[in-house]
Amino acid sequence: MLPINLKEKFSLFDEYWTPKILGEFNGQLIKIAKLKGEFVWHAHENEDELFYIVKGNLEMRYRDKTIHLTSGDLHIVPKSTDHFPVAEEECWVMLIEPKGTAHTGKVNTEKTLNESDLEWI
Amino acid sequence: MLPINLKEKFSLFDEYWTPKILGEFNGQLIKIAKLKGEFVWHAHENEDELFYIVKGNLEMRYRDKTIHLTSGDLHIVPKSTDHFPVAEEECWVMLIEPKGTAHTGKVNTEKTLNESDLEWI
Repeated sequence: MLPINLKEKFSLFDEYWTPKILGEFNGQLIKIAKLKGEFVWHAHENEDELFYIVKGNLEMRYRDKTIHLTSGDLHIVPKSTDHFPVAEEECWVMLIEPKGTAHTGKVNTEKTLNESDLEWI
Repeated sequence: MLPINLKEKFSLFDEYWTPKILGEFNGQLIKIAKLKGEFVWHAHENEDELFYIVKGNLEMRYRDKTIHLTSGDLHIVPKSTDHFPVAEEECWVMLIEPKGTAHTGKVNTEKTLNESDLEWI
């Protein structure tokens, strides 16, 4: 029940595209990640995904449009929707999605991580 | 699917203890509120409640302890747990809790609002 300070948690790691888990509420996991470069095209079949941009800028590419996100923005990626996150410079995000959400949906790539391997910090 | 800028949304209202709804994902509502002064003792029987402090400080009093929260902190109020939020000075919070969460739990006070009366902004 202690406070979880976002910036302090971000100071604990450097790797990109490697979400860390901060907490759980109502079956949702609160994760943070540092992003740089391109991720992979993927969709989460049954799960919406909330992004909150803590620092920097993120391009969320969809098949038919690109959404430009900046520090202080929230954005919901709807379930079953192909998306492709791109960060030209380092970007810090908080993600909230249901426990059990597959990292890259049904796509398996070298960036794919299993939830059971994600670290709690 | 457009970006939701938190600070911009906070600029749209001034009332205290009157959550506004920004969005919905996975059955959870994203709300923001400006707080000042004392709220009421209450609990949400089946719902955890995520607080994120956007600006200022918030004291979350529990029956057996007080948690001091400041800008950039996350805090989860567990279901079925009496809590009493107090903000000495104006404090801005984002709240995430399931659709249908009763504002003041089973307690009915002059501060109690119905979800159907909350404004989407």
